[in-house]
Amino acid sequence: MAMDWLKFLRGEPKNTASVAKERLKVVVAHQREGRANGPVYLPMLREELLNVVRKYVQVPDNAVQINVQREDGLEVLEMNITLPETG
Amino acid sequence: MAMDWLKFLRGEPKNTASVAKERLKVVVAHQREGRANGPVYLPMLREELLNVVRKYVQVPDNAVQINVQREDGLEVLEMNITLPETG
Repeated sequence: MAMDWLKFLRGEPKNTASVAKERLKVVVAHQREGRANGPVYLPMLREELLNVVRKYVQVPDNAVQINVQREDGLEVLEMNITLPETG
Repeated sequence: MAMDWLKFLRGEPKNTASVAKERLKVVVAHQREGRANGPVYLPMLREELLNVVRKYVQVPDNAVQINVQREDGLEVLEMNITLPETG
């Protein structure tokens, strides 16, 4: 299972600009068969997770990409951050 | 990109016990080519993210699976939670 993640992350298309960059990806995925909406707390939970990331990772807005995808029974929030060079 | 997530999540093996369950997955992945360790704040960031999830999702310990995987330049924390039935 974890190896699937590794393959998945490694398998991302590399563009020349980002090859050497340091990146952080945070994903919150909710799944429930046959039900469109997640728990009522899901939006707040996601908001708070993003705030925690924001607290630790201080980057300009354009270094953060947030994407939410919905499909029946599955809702995926994905946050991709390009980290600043730290040497 | 988001569709990859959907495929990835959908593609998980389904065992009969979990088909109808509601599930939450939180992933924190850090990638940096040619460097083993993430930022110094990474362990704290992850700890705090897990605490946020714990605050919202009150489940018994055996409903939570946490897995950390390391491979050169890539470190993936994965938290899988089986949510209680909420009707």
